Amino acid sequence: MEFIHTEKAPVPAGHYSQAVISGGMVYVSGQLPLNPADGSVSAGIEEQASQVLANLEQILVAGGSSLQKVVRVTVYISDISLWGTFNRVFAEKFGNHRPARAVVPTRELHHGFLVEVEAVAEL
Amino acid sequence: MEFIHTEKAPVPAGHYSQAVISGGMVYVSGQLPLNPADGSVSAGIEEQASQVLANLEQILVAGGSSLQKVVRVTVYISDISLWGTFNRVFAEKFGNHRPARAVVPTRELHHGFLVEVEAVAEL
Amino acid sequence: MEFIHTEKAPVPAGHYSQAVISGGMVYVSGQLPLNPADGSVSAGIEEQASQVLANLEQILVAGGSSLQKVVRVTVYISDISLWGTFNRVFAEKFGNHRPARAVVPTRELHHGFLVEVEAVAEL
Repeated sequence: MEFIHTEKAPVPAGHYSQAVISGGMVYVSGQLPLNPADGSVSAGIEEQASQVLANLEQILVAGGSSLQKVVRVTVYISDISLWGTFNRVFAEKFGNHRPARAVVPTRELHHGFLVEVEAVAEL
Repeated sequence: MEFIHTEKAPVPAGHYSQAVISGGMVYVSGQLPLNPADGSVSAGIEEQASQVLANLEQILVAGGSSLQKVVRVTVYISDISLWGTFNRVFAEKFGNHRPARAVVPTRELHHGFLVEVEAVAEL
Repeated sequence: MEFIHTEKAPVPAGHYSQAVISGGMVYVSGQLPLNPADGSVSAGIEEQASQVLANLEQILVAGGSSLQKVVRVTVYISDISLWGTFNRVFAEKFGNHRPARAVVPTRELHHGFLVEVEAVAEL
């Protein structure tokens, strides 16, 4: 088992690693839309979607993977009405690659965030 | 990585594949209780549970797997009061096979659906 | 595929196994903070967090794994305000091991429980 850490994504706020490599797969922890440079958060779903996917990408790259190697992703959003905008940003970011995905509406996320994303990818 | 597509299950509404095969496992996207033939949705949890498991089964079969090969499944339901009926339909559909499972009560699902199911299965 | 059953963790209340082994990994079903000895539940998040992680550990050990071999864990909590206490109990229980993790706030869990945990671990 290998543990990933990169300064290009938010430092874990709790007792977990940014990602763990096991059996040839990278398991990425739930990412929030924090800007790793200064800890700031943008207000809208479009900005938060971009940030959370940027964080995911940095962790994947640090682990020797990439967005194009994502097998499955689970997206938690604070309200299902955010689905359309999130999906558009996701499509722009992933391009031709279409992983397996589930979008799950939850209660309010940590610190009022609108979106959280976790993923499993190939190396 | 291999991407599954079958007309016997609902066409993805967003930027994802019905399922992805990686490392000898099939990762099925969150399925909703849409009838793939005409896009209709039945009102009750019993009908929606049957439909969503039928959709899951079609995607698994299209990927060379089956319900009997499901390793784990996550079930999102819009209210925990639906647990009992969903569990009964699930038991009837899976028969002797008892995968690992988590049932998660969420906020309202997309389009007011009562249940969403994602799964990981062996080939 | 191998199915795990231990009396040291709660008996499944529905149509699922406590855990399934596949491809060298153990997939543990969503665990609730039930005391397996008498079916009782403690009231607070601290006690429920301890119980649910004890249940997880017993199932992992029964399957030939351990908490130290957990690759990823998803934690469902009924309110994000429980995050801090849960994280502290989790840190005490896992010690130096920091798996990939997502914490997801949901609606009320089954029987009013405050926390549910599912996990994937190496053998």
